[in-house]
Amino acid sequence: MKGMQIGRAFTLIEPGPVVLVTTHDGQKNNIMTITWTMVMDFAPRFAITTGPWNYSYAALKKTRECVIAIPTVDLIDKVVGVGTCSGADTDKFGKFGLTPAKAKHVRAPLIEECLANIECRVIDIVAKHNIVVLEGVAAYFDSSRKEKRTVHAVGDGTFVVDGRKLDRREMMKSKLPDGV
Amino acid sequence: MKGMQIGRAFTLIEPGPVVLVTTHDGQKNNIMTITWTMVMDFAPRFAITTGPWNYSYAALKKTRECVIAIPTVDLIDKVVGVGTCSGADTDKFGKFGLTPAKAKHVRAPLIEECLANIECRVIDIVAKHNIVVLEGVAAYFDSSRKEKRTVHAVGDGTFVVDGRKLDRREMMKSKLPDGV
Repeated sequence: MKGMQIGRAFTLIEPGPVVLVTTHDGQKNNIMTITWTMVMDFAPRFAITTGPWNYSYAALKKTRECVIAIPTVDLIDKVVGVGTCSGADTDKFGKFGLTPAKAKHVRAPLIEECLANIECRVIDIVAKHNIVVLEGVAAYFDSSRKEKRTVHAVGDGTFVVDGRKLDRREMMKSKLPDGV
Repeated sequence: MKGMQIGRAFTLIEPGPVVLVTTHDGQKNNIMTITWTMVMDFAPRFAITTGPWNYSYAALKKTRECVIAIPTVDLIDKVVGVGTCSGADTDKFGKFGLTPAKAKHVRAPLIEECLANIECRVIDIVAKHNIVVLEGVAAYFDSSRKEKRTVHAVGDGTFVVDGRKLDRREMMKSKLPDGV
């Protein structure tokens, strides 16, 4: 998986795909499925909504680090599986045949099978609203992967797969930051 | 446009479509295009990231009300158009041929041409992060509309249209709130 420009990492989150978030609590790796995400700036700054109802939250809060991994449609049953069991009693990397890979800046692992990974640091927790504010510090994209379609959770147990692409770069020129 | 159960309104936002947000500043209607959104709960609670760089922000802050309208792919050029001009000098409903419709609980208008609309109240502004926390109070869905595919902004001037649907309701049963 090759490095990608960190300034473009927001383009991985902005379309709203379901993501996997990995943590390392000092002893073991864990993964959670998160669909409540938001870009907050053209800078690599993202929000996720999570809290004590997710087992990973304790590690996220303690280590203030995580990796956001972007799965594609071929991984949908692993994504749903990860989201419906708990790291309290399950080694999710083992159970779902996912491969942890060493990150550069954080102890939380990248997920080898995913299309992209973003190493993140927690820069704030808005406890009142269960919002965790993250800053991306490094990003990776597997351009050799054939399947690049991500998946959007509807929230009722159904998902929408990416369809065709539309290009409105010319119309939006005035609004895009340099280099994007 | 018929009413829909407010408890299901989060399913309109969770997949991450680009949305239109309307406001009424006491004198006139306005619309902004927002792609930075997040569901925060199964309750109808959403976050959007916006700030003084959007002309609508002043009205949103003052009235603490808005409508989130969900456009579909046939409206993409209106959506991009709305996002690349300012309500400071433009009547966006007039310019883009969009029809404001009366809401029940807020003065901000619904958008007749959209697939769905959610009337919202501002329940908090996390000023430090430019996050506006909204609560949905009523929702509407136009099921008579043939085009139901929404559009996801990538953030670089390209957009991804909804593709096919996957059903994982059975696998996710344990995680879904009643009635969803």
